[in-house]
Amino acid sequence: MSEHYARPVAGHVPVLRLGDVLLVTLQGDLHDGMASQLQQDLAETIAASRVTGVVIDISGVEIVDSFLGRVLAETAAQTELLAARTVVAGMRPAVAITLVELGLTFPELRTALNTEAALALLAQPVVANRPDGEGRP
Amino acid sequence: MSEHYARPVAGHVPVLRLGDVLLVTLQGDLHDGMASQLQQDLAETIAASRVTGVVIDISGVEIVDSFLGRVLAETAAQTELLAARTVVAGMRPAVAITLVELGLTFPELRTALNTEAALALLAQPVVANRPDGEGRP
Repeated sequence: MSEHYARPVAGHVPVLRLGDVLLVTLQGDLHDGMASQLQQDLAETIAASRVTGVVIDISGVEIVDSFLGRVLAETAAQTELLAARTVVAGMRPAVAITLVELGLTFPELRTALNTEAALALLAQPVVANRPDGEGRP
Repeated sequence: MSEHYARPVAGHVPVLRLGDVLLVTLQGDLHDGMASQLQQDLAETIAASRVTGVVIDISGVEIVDSFLGRVLAETAAQTELLAARTVVAGMRPAVAITLVELGLTFPELRTALNTEAALALLAQPVVANRPDGEGRP
């Protein structure tokens, strides 16, 4: 297991492994370089560790812009392609309001009130005939 | 449960709840104000939620100084007083080397290789008469 543990480097957002799920906690500002590095780290860790889900906790994110919105959507899409599911957890009410005002509602993005609820969501079996298709047995 | 969920504010380090454990992921530089705010947030969340343990993941911390070392030791001591246990997870080898070189070994601090191991450690029953904790499995 430990050989699959993501090795963090300076400027990286740590990717924690909790059983079959990876947990990422976004804090403060996410710069362009960190975002693309995070996407790469996540993709490599999913591929190497065969986890079934990713939780991105954004309860520490106070201000959201279209960049962060795009990062979340892209990360979720990339995770789906690698046959894992993404849940965005802990979105602050003000962030949700801002995203809607920006016209960014991301219907394909699963959300949960907090990380605990997100983990519970990922522990549920995938419902068949979901139009956005999880691809997991 | 949700009323016990730590409400994060800008400049705060998010405190995530996972069952009976709180998880804090330190990333990059921890400023003085953030450290004391984190200690206050943790103390209040422990008192309000009756969790039994705190995991502080420092795998995203590349550079350590005596300030961070003191914060970790103080946070652990404070958590013990509130009848919960602290495990520091994911310390990078370079950080461990630096702490020893600084003369900061913190024998009272429990550590684990990663967050998953820390959660497993906290799930174990408390061993009687072990004042200095379990350390490594």
